[in-house]
Amino acid sequence: MAGTPEHTPLDLPEGDPFGPHNLPYGIFSESPDGARRIGVRLGDHVLDAGAAASALGSPYVSLLARPSLNPLLAAGRTAWSDVRRALTAWVTVPAHRETVLPFLHPLSAVTLHLPFDVADYVDFYASENHASNLGRLFRPDEEPLKPNWKHLPVGYHGRSGTVVVSGTDVVRPSGQRKGPADPAPVFGPSVRLDIETEVGYVVGAPSAQGTAVPLSAYRDHVFGLCLLNDWSARDIQSWETVPLGPHLGKSFATSISAWITPLEALDAARVTAPERSVPLLPYLDDADPSLDPAGYDLRITVSLNGHVISEPPFSGMYWTGAQMLAHMTVNGASLRTGDLYGSGTISGTEENERGSLIEMTWNGSHPLELPDGKRGFLENGDVVTLSAWAPGANGTRVGLGEVTGRIVAPLPAGS
Amino acid sequence: MAGTPEHTPLDLPEGDPFGPHNLPYGIFSESPDGARRIGVRLGDHVLDAGAAASALGSPYVSLLARPSLNPLLAAGRTAWSDVRRALTAWVTVPAHRETVLPFLHPLSAVTLHLPFDVADYVDFYASENHASNLGRLFRPDEEPLKPNWKHLPVGYHGRSGTVVVSGTDVVRPSGQRKGPADPAPVFGPSVRLDIETEVGYVVGAPSAQGTAVPLSAYRDHVFGLCLLNDWSARDIQSWETVPLGPHLGKSFATSISAWITPLEALDAARVTAPERSVPLLPYLDDADPSLDPAGYDLRITVSLNGHVISEPPFSGMYWTGAQMLAHMTVNGASLRTGDLYGSGTISGTEENERGSLIEMTWNGSHPLELPDGKRGFLENGDVVTLSAWAPGANGTRVGLGEVTGRIVAPLPAGS
Repeated sequence: MAGTPEHTPLDLPEGDPFGPHNLPYGIFSESPDGARRIGVRLGDHVLDAGAAASALGSPYVSLLARPSLNPLLAAGRTAWSDVRRALTAWVTVPAHRETVLPFLHPLSAVTLHLPFDVADYVDFYASENHASNLGRLFRPDEEPLKPNWKHLPVGYHGRSGTVVVSGTDVVRPSGQRKGPADPAPVFGPSVRLDIETEVGYVVGAPSAQGTAVPLSAYRDHVFGLCLLNDWSARDIQSWETVPLGPHLGKSFATSISAWITPLEALDAARVTAPERSVPLLPYLDDADPSLDPAGYDLRITVSLNGHVISEPPFSGMYWTGAQMLAHMTVNGASLRTGDLYGSGTISGTEENERGSLIEMTWNGSHPLELPDGKRGFLENGDVVTLSAWAPGANGTRVGLGEVTGRIVAPLPAGS
Repeated sequence: MAGTPEHTPLDLPEGDPFGPHNLPYGIFSESPDGARRIGVRLGDHVLDAGAAASALGSPYVSLLARPSLNPLLAAGRTAWSDVRRALTAWVTVPAHRETVLPFLHPLSAVTLHLPFDVADYVDFYASENHASNLGRLFRPDEEPLKPNWKHLPVGYHGRSGTVVVSGTDVVRPSGQRKGPADPAPVFGPSVRLDIETEVGYVVGAPSAQGTAVPLSAYRDHVFGLCLLNDWSARDIQSWETVPLGPHLGKSFATSISAWITPLEALDAARVTAPERSVPLLPYLDDADPSLDPAGYDLRITVSLNGHVISEPPFSGMYWTGAQMLAHMTVNGASLRTGDLYGSGTISGTEENERGSLIEMTWNGSHPLELPDGKRGFLENGDVVTLSAWAPGANGTRVGLGEVTGRIVAPLPAGS
């Protein structure tokens, strides 16, 4: 072969977290308004997967030459494996080099888009440390966890129409809030704007209404993981939330990473969930050794304006993605291709492992001391970035990319 | 003109609630799996609107020759008026009779489908009587309404993927429940399956993320109304609901009527909302006389196995559709074509005006006495039908059709 292999995008530095062992999927265009195409990340490049499939005469061109991941998501687990095997060959087998190289675009030269059409979005509350911290903050005289918490993964539906891709600015929401001393609610931009550090599960294969998806079918339905920041206006949320739960405090924006990491890339990162302290009903009981472990050892970093403010560990989550899926469907609720469900805020046991500002600053009472000033909650112009990696086979790392967003000043209130 | 006009589907009996003053939209096929097409109801017939548009050389063929209402919904208020004016002419102007008649299919000979692709589904809680009844039932020692109730229309997101068209069987959901005397939750089919009598608002024109939709723009965005039954498993709901609100107790199924009544057909039914007993923030204050009244005088009948069990009046709702829309977007949440929001259970002041069984039977303690037995909550095989009409101009009635569903036995539990 001609040329110096080390100088092509196919020849990655050792240990690159986006090597051929990873191959996450996204949607890119060559110009901001250009045609959208499926891209597969390799190092700091994006492979135009549909164009490569076409040039190589692949049977998967119908799944890959698309403006959205949805057809691939809908194709199911066998197709996901087959396509991944083909992609791996295209970027590793020397005979394909010359064909594939023209379809690799520098990441810095493309625009990334929302990788799939979000159907329903459900957000869970699966970290015991997070739920306990919020209980201690808001109900100091009660048990930190509500009686149902260890019996089922508590969750609720969010707004799928406001899920945005990493990099999208977030307009500070306005709304009603009422402090204990206020005689009546006041209206204005949120003054307690927060983040929630989460992992999102992307559903590929649908299920029929009236049927449940058991724990054992988790990998038949879930295609992969993304990073998710469920921006939260704590002041709006606390006034509106009784008795039907969060609504406008959450529905203004939810950001996800541009890259969806296939579950197959995370096989080496699988962990069993922590010991559960109360017995589980059979549909949630994952002690059966024939079940795959459904936890993941993801190492997450939360940065505010470039400063690391927390490193929440995902491995300690009380509820797994398989349990959330089994619970979400046990009443017969169907799954659609593109359903997204979030883990809820990820918090570890330590102070520097908390996944939200309300926990990090203990409801604003202990502001973060950053080089550019104190922060109780977010200010306009603040940029929050969640990034993560997972252990791969043989000491490698699997990058999950990042989800980032900047807070921008509110627009004038409606009416 | 030849023939006896009284014998064609274009010649309706006087007072038909589906006359040319109504013209609701739906989706039909000539066989259950046949091609889906937009239908407009006229009496007991369905006009194949796309075929008629094509035969008449109408410019609206691109909006009407479609398998879903979404393109028409997205076209916006001016297009909605223009298309309605054209349809009115097609079914009333004698010169069009011979062209249009072949495209009228008997309602009994077609299959009706979900009329639009549901984007996000939000359910409100806008009836003061309903919210007060539930407060008295569940929190007898407190004020029946929570402190926020009269300041904002309380609502939450539901599952859009399980919205089904009238006539679809509803599988009894299974799930966790825990009575006060149970030491731990038990799993099984819901034993307290209920209905919620609601009106649904169908959003046509989208809005941009980061902007609010004021009260004055309600009719620019909302295309029409449907009937909605938000089936509810009270036992599942009560155990899961703290602190994030309803989830599996609702997400298994939500039924809507097959016909969407355009707002223009309901002009004569508009009413102002009742006097509000606390001052409203400006974005919700509809006292401005330049605003159209946004309440509707809909007369609803609830039947169980053919027996009328309640007649909830919609005219007394505390919050209007315009207020719900303004609230839902005041934080900058965007609207998408196909968004659906429900009013919440409609209950009047009287016992025979309650919109849910939990209210009618006071949590099962006063079962309904029906000719076929007592009912606290729904049994398998029960058929619930909500139907409604509204006053039209000159003493006419505008039919809103019905939403019906039958409860069928649960499938075996997952896992």
